[in-house]
Amino acid sequence: MRPIPSPAEVEHYLHQHIPLSADMGVHVVACEAAGVTLRAPLAPNINHHQTVFGGSTSAVAILAAWTWLNFALRAADQTSRLVIQRNTVDYLAPITREFEAHCAGMPAAQLEEFLRTLERYGKARATLTAVLTCKGEKVATFSGDYVAARGKL
Amino acid sequence: MRPIPSPAEVEHYLHQHIPLSADMGVHVVACEAAGVTLRAPLAPNINHHQTVFGGSTSAVAILAAWTWLNFALRAADQTSRLVIQRNTVDYLAPITREFEAHCAGMPAAQLEEFLRTLERYGKARATLTAVLTCKGEKVATFSGDYVAARGKL
Repeated sequence: MRPIPSPAEVEHYLHQHIPLSADMGVHVVACEAAGVTLRAPLAPNINHHQTVFGGSTSAVAILAAWTWLNFALRAADQTSRLVIQRNTVDYLAPITREFEAHCAGMPAAQLEEFLRTLERYGKARATLTAVLTCKGEKVATFSGDYVAARGKL
Repeated sequence: MRPIPSPAEVEHYLHQHIPLSADMGVHVVACEAAGVTLRAPLAPNINHHQTVFGGSTSAVAILAAWTWLNFALRAADQTSRLVIQRNTVDYLAPITREFEAHCAGMPAAQLEEFLRTLERYGKARATLTAVLTCKGEKVATFSGDYVAARGKL
């Protein structure tokens, strides 16, 4: 088991490898086994209503869940390719200022099962959820199916 | 009925009011009653696999459908607030270079019904779909529910 890197290291990784995360001003608040929290400001994500563009809401949520699973795989020394297969976002309220996306990851037993499946079949699928909040209020929910596979998908 | 602005005018509007569309390099290929086509390059939307980040795929699709409905409302002299309520994206294949999102909008009869509902109840909901292609191959599909409302939602 390798340790999960610090939030600053994860943020650097995201900004370097997924430049849109830098454009969106994504800040990594927490990245640990218990969950990933990303924060993004209003300005670069604003729309014509002076609220957050739904595309930004989606993108930050996709990133939060991906980050959790990516670093959970790395911590388990898995170098699998990880891609999103499907996602649904429910937009519950306009986001009027900086917002957070929190993905609580999977319970340890479910992660172990996921890793066992990946080990045995070379491929595994996981559904992760994320909750988006603004000023402590729930403003959107996200559910995404991710697939990890050894080699090419 | 006001005419729909030119693709260049729509692109300017998007880049000005939704700055992430400029960061993503969104280019308006077509914006007409028969559909909206947006194109985005790989570079600003790239991820660690050198393919398009799912967040960009989602955001460009959300924008294509929103653009169609926004300008359909304007053409009908409706100044309603238009927001996304829910969306689902299926990612079918990695996107390895510039890609397009095409939203065919709604058939005329369905748009008329939508506008009548908005007129009568002050609120109307529409489901729009978009297809994403790369080098002519279908790489993702999008379905989004949008709500138009007079005044605040």
